[in-house]
Amino acid sequence: MRLLLINPNTTEAMTDQLTEVARRVAGPSVDIVPVTASRGVPYIASRAEAQIAGVEVLEIIAEHGKGTDAAIIAAFGDPGIIAARELFDMPVVGMAEAALVTAALMGERFGVVTFSPLLARWYVESVAVTGLTDRFTGVRCPKTPPSEVGNVMHDMRDDLLALTNQATEEDGADVVILGGAPLAGLAPLLAEASPGLLVDPISAATAQAIALSRLGTSYAHRTTRPAPKPSKGLGPALAAIIAGETS
Amino acid sequence: MRLLLINPNTTEAMTDQLTEVARRVAGPSVDIVPVTASRGVPYIASRAEAQIAGVEVLEIIAEHGKGTDAAIIAAFGDPGIIAARELFDMPVVGMAEAALVTAALMGERFGVVTFSPLLARWYVESVAVTGLTDRFTGVRCPKTPPSEVGNVMHDMRDDLLALTNQATEEDGADVVILGGAPLAGLAPLLAEASPGLLVDPISAATAQAIALSRLGTSYAHRTTRPAPKPSKGLGPALAAIIAGETS
Amino acid sequence: MRLLLINPNTTEAMTDQLTEVARRVAGPSVDIVPVTASRGVPYIASRAEAQIAGVEVLEIIAEHGKGTDAAIIAAFGDPGIIAARELFDMPVVGMAEAALVTAALMGERFGVVTFSPLLARWYVESVAVTGLTDRFTGVRCPKTPPSEVGNVMHDMRDDLLALTNQATEEDGADVVILGGAPLAGLAPLLAEASPGLLVDPISAATAQAIALSRLGTSYAHRTTRPAPKPSKGLGPALAAIIAGETS
Amino acid sequence: MRLLLINPNTTEAMTDQLTEVARRVAGPSVDIVPVTASRGVPYIASRAEAQIAGVEVLEIIAEHGKGTDAAIIAAFGDPGIIAARELFDMPVVGMAEAALVTAALMGERFGVVTFSPLLARWYVESVAVTGLTDRFTGVRCPKTPPSEVGNVMHDMRDDLLALTNQATEEDGADVVILGGAPLAGLAPLLAEASPGLLVDPISAATAQAIALSRLGTSYAHRTTRPAPKPSKGLGPALAAIIAGETS
Amino acid sequence: MRLLLINPNTTEAMTDQLTEVARRVAGPSVDIVPVTASRGVPYIASRAEAQIAGVEVLEIIAEHGKGTDAAIIAAFGDPGIIAARELFDMPVVGMAEAALVTAALMGERFGVVTFSPLLARWYVESVAVTGLTDRFTGVRCPKTPPSEVGNVMHDMRDDLLALTNQATEEDGADVVILGGAPLAGLAPLLAEASPGLLVDPISAATAQAIALSRLGTSYAHRTTRPAPKPSKGLGPALAAIIAGETS
Amino acid sequence: MRLLLINPNTTEAMTDQLTEVARRVAGPSVDIVPVTASRGVPYIASRAEAQIAGVEVLEIIAEHGKGTDAAIIAAFGDPGIIAARELFDMPVVGMAEAALVTAALMGERFGVVTFSPLLARWYVESVAVTGLTDRFTGVRCPKTPPSEVGNVMHDMRDDLLALTNQATEEDGADVVILGGAPLAGLAPLLAEASPGLLVDPISAATAQAIALSRLGTSYAHRTTRPAPKPSKGLGPALAAIIAGETS
Repeated sequence: MRLLLINPNTTEAMTDQLTEVARRVAGPSVDIVPVTASRGVPYIASRAEAQIAGVEVLEIIAEHGKGTDAAIIAAFGDPGIIAARELFDMPVVGMAEAALVTAALMGERFGVVTFSPLLARWYVESVAVTGLTDRFTGVRCPKTPPSEVGNVMHDMRDDLLALTNQATEEDGADVVILGGAPLAGLAPLLAEASPGLLVDPISAATAQAIALSRLGTSYAHRTTRPAPKPSKGLGPALAAIIAGETS
Repeated sequence: MRLLLINPNTTEAMTDQLTEVARRVAGPSVDIVPVTASRGVPYIASRAEAQIAGVEVLEIIAEHGKGTDAAIIAAFGDPGIIAARELFDMPVVGMAEAALVTAALMGERFGVVTFSPLLARWYVESVAVTGLTDRFTGVRCPKTPPSEVGNVMHDMRDDLLALTNQATEEDGADVVILGGAPLAGLAPLLAEASPGLLVDPISAATAQAIALSRLGTSYAHRTTRPAPKPSKGLGPALAAIIAGETS
Repeated sequence: MRLLLINPNTTEAMTDQLTEVARRVAGPSVDIVPVTASRGVPYIASRAEAQIAGVEVLEIIAEHGKGTDAAIIAAFGDPGIIAARELFDMPVVGMAEAALVTAALMGERFGVVTFSPLLARWYVESVAVTGLTDRFTGVRCPKTPPSEVGNVMHDMRDDLLALTNQATEEDGADVVILGGAPLAGLAPLLAEASPGLLVDPISAATAQAIALSRLGTSYAHRTTRPAPKPSKGLGPALAAIIAGETS
Repeated sequence: MRLLLINPNTTEAMTDQLTEVARRVAGPSVDIVPVTASRGVPYIASRAEAQIAGVEVLEIIAEHGKGTDAAIIAAFGDPGIIAARELFDMPVVGMAEAALVTAALMGERFGVVTFSPLLARWYVESVAVTGLTDRFTGVRCPKTPPSEVGNVMHDMRDDLLALTNQATEEDGADVVILGGAPLAGLAPLLAEASPGLLVDPISAATAQAIALSRLGTSYAHRTTRPAPKPSKGLGPALAAIIAGETS
Repeated sequence: MRLLLINPNTTEAMTDQLTEVARRVAGPSVDIVPVTASRGVPYIASRAEAQIAGVEVLEIIAEHGKGTDAAIIAAFGDPGIIAARELFDMPVVGMAEAALVTAALMGERFGVVTFSPLLARWYVESVAVTGLTDRFTGVRCPKTPPSEVGNVMHDMRDDLLALTNQATEEDGADVVILGGAPLAGLAPLLAEASPGLLVDPISAATAQAIALSRLGTSYAHRTTRPAPKPSKGLGPALAAIIAGETS
Repeated sequence: MRLLLINPNTTEAMTDQLTEVARRVAGPSVDIVPVTASRGVPYIASRAEAQIAGVEVLEIIAEHGKGTDAAIIAAFGDPGIIAARELFDMPVVGMAEAALVTAALMGERFGVVTFSPLLARWYVESVAVTGLTDRFTGVRCPKTPPSEVGNVMHDMRDDLLALTNQATEEDGADVVILGGAPLAGLAPLLAEASPGLLVDPISAATAQAIALSRLGTSYAHRTTRPAPKPSKGLGPALAAIIAGETS
């Protein structure tokens, strides 16, 4: 099995961290193919940046998707996911959506903990998109953003544990998602000290991409693909998909 | 990996069919342990019957769950699932919930096709429980129940395909769940002729149970387990769990 | 008029307290027939315990319901109520549902006050089941559970009054339900000192059971009863109902 | 016990019919005091007419409410009910609300049957006001309004029965409300031939007014009454209430 | 263009203030025709008072609406708006609704700031009526009502600014509505110091009334007007409208 | 006043049609500045195409927005609107949103009529985004898409009128939106023959953009703009905005 892991942020180090965690979950029999965005911003933190990243996701799947069994969009907020599902004949899994759905299978109520208040609202909107808002206990985050994103997982570990416990004990979350690519791989490190069940989004996305591939669903006959049409200004692989020339 | 597959119906032949499909999805490295309900009715089709079946599910996990990595409740409607998640320290996956969540990862909107109008309403309620109602396009089923449940998958194959296509073309379902234990294994048989993506619930439940196990989440420290207390009239294994004597 | 008052908890003293309050509301012309669960736990406080209690409710109505005009399920959370309505040809009133619906007739918004944080979430879910969530101002309860349930109504009276006033003044509840069987009969004791309208659940359930009986609705022709079927492991009265042998 | 039965329509014959049914349900120990609107229209069928009727309801309770234990607003749509609950220190029951809440205690899903398409939408809105929309299966009515309202209950009896059965069999309503004052008393006449449980709104309103009175709730200390203020152009009794001069 | 500006409160000074702000927004080419309620209370602050005011709004439009292009109901809560839209063949704009809808066009989430806790709940209900609750961040107001309403805009200016900033910074409102007729014209005074986009309701209502008039929509053929009927106790202009004698 | 009218489709003829209608509504005192997308597809009809168009909208406002008072995104579905509101310090109005909000000010319930079934579902989603779903009566459209989009407004005029009348008479829409850029300017042509109030989206968007500009709201102090950051692969004007170099 071969999974395309797309980092819609332009930061390579983040791709490496995400890939390492995904490989740990997937095991040796699954091939993880990482690709980093070449258009966009270092770390997506707004709807404007996600609008741009979503197009880059389409370009990447068009160019690198051939021969893979499923694609993972590895940014919370899942930029481009609805568009990608229209265009491509394979499972497309978003990191936010996979984390939320996995949490929903583990308990009745779930919350999100993240490292910056700037992301809190967008996470709320990501939950709304899935339809799971009534089971959501909210986002817990520090009051101010960190000065640097790179190492937050270690620098803020105690704070993040405290927030996780508040999500469980005060908000009533049975399950807590540790959201944001910079927290990839944190969940097992906090598990011992946490009263809730913890979800690591990239792990959840990897497990769900494998689950969907395992089902062997046929995408060949689906009619939800948009009608073919000409386009201007896109990469050749994406233009060919939109023109209906390839699948 | 070892999965407990619980058939809350008392019909052994149904257990065999479900187990066969689950094993096909899980592959040889996963051990499927099937158990059939010894208390209840041959085929659960009402909320009253599910109330009774839910207790039997608890008794079965208490008695047979030790040494398994996850439990699958293999009846649409997932009898006892909330209760089971409270009591047991491992993932518990319901067939309805797993099918719905898997469908939600495959497309924006999903519908259900089943073989009898007697089940339609309960399916609607199962969707409501997950919170996914806004993405649900409804249930399609024949106008009258079949005279015999055992062989509906083959006897009604053409009708079920027609309903599936209506779910896609008229209701706007991107994904169609073929619901009800007697339809286990039907999805791949219809895939070639169907414009929608098809989901087989027992396959989805198996894939999700494996996905949850793969994540290696720690259940040891969770605080959602009810306080220990004495009880009357339960099997000894379940009574011990409720008394807090075992995990 | 004859009402079956079912205590799904196994504690007889609780049945006595509930019966006394019900008789006060019903007056001498109504006959209250109390029955205490013989299977289950002393005081239901989880969904797992309610799953078990719900079956016991069905067994009790099957065995003792003949000749009564309506049944009252006297535990907050109303274990088994949907199942009971399917099986039995008479009104079945749940204590939570009756309290909520009565509150909804007395004011636009209502809250719940109870004596333990362990019950808070379940009360929220009970409101969701009725559909009245948008009119609900939430649960107020102490931060820690009491050491003993038996006498909370008197031991915690001042705290409960303070919570009731917070529900009215801070949460905006026009009506406050004093929830949990151990608080049966408390509402009139707090009325003088409270700015909200207070609802005592067992009183509300009794008044509603009488109201439904008074309407003289015919249940004989309804088609929502499940199809008759064989069963295993149930008491003979319930098995006969499920087999369609009696009504 | 003494109940004020307010007909917000100006048609006396309708008041007589409603009073007769209410007395039948209430029995001889309850005194029903009927009052007909002297301002407004013969039969309220729009939101504009209900706006006007609602003020007349306030005037009537202010003038005739003293010495009664509860008030019934006997028009579907319950004109003035929220306003009346603010101003008066006793239970105020609306015919629509009481019917809906009673239906919600009798089964999981309920529908409405009425005699004219002009009312259908307003009934939908009445359900939305209660918060019970998710349990509502919709309104069934004839395609065209009757030429005369007075005798619809008898003239259209067969059609109304057919609509009732459609509500049950096609829409999935466990309970059917026969809505509109001109249908007062019809429910028992159709019960024998109907597969659903039927609710007569004025009967339900009467039973609920009695239930609320029976609870003996104290309204004396509530703080939801608007602050006293001067007014212009109102009847003296209502002006006195608004000025805080009487209760 | 000619706009009827209805103040449903009986206070003339309030009408003057509202008219002045409306004229500033509308500019010299639009004629604003103010009318003050002659029946009702000085300042509407409850649902009972709004019930009465709504009828007065109908009387005023019936008497003064001829020759105007649109009507503005200049009280938060929009008394009588649904009724007025049924009866009159021109746009009817409510101050609350216009403010909410304008806010919804300016940002994803909006809140309300007002000067008294007595109004908070009604504002929440006004939002619910529009359907925009999911985008609403709530009401911010002082803990106690002001002793006098007339000059709150200046007396409480610092407090109102602080509340506005809390709505933006703590509640996440992109847009803040300064609600209540006594705050008419405050928004531009706070704009410099506020991090959110501010909406002045009477300005929004004026801009929306002009926008609707500008569209030139034909109201002549609409079928939503209630059937003509006789009435008792209304002003002659409104009675004629209800009788279908004029439009 | 100067309004930027952005056609996110690459078809110039469509821009001309939209501009003509916008100018008619705006009158001579408003300057309409039309810009056609240079990247994307001729006519956006899928979420994938909207993902791409949304970025083009950002590029266009960045490049052409300086000196305009508001921007109109002139494609149903409003591609890029949330992103644009984050980045730019002026009102941004979407054609779908403006039409829906305008309809919501004209009546309680509204529907959409369009010329192709391929767009129906997306319109439903556009309504959901605004939060107005509970007031929405659905989309009416022909069963099959037209062979050519250019002239549908005239070729299908009778069909569109029939659909409009069904939306009013069968679905209960007080107001009907004629959706899709190719129908720009159709509403007044059907008004005479239609029982509902009709809304032309580009007219509504123009009227709303003028209304928002008229309010003179200050955007200078808002804090919702994303933190400045570097980017790759964007046009220089948009990159400068994202880098925080210009406003």
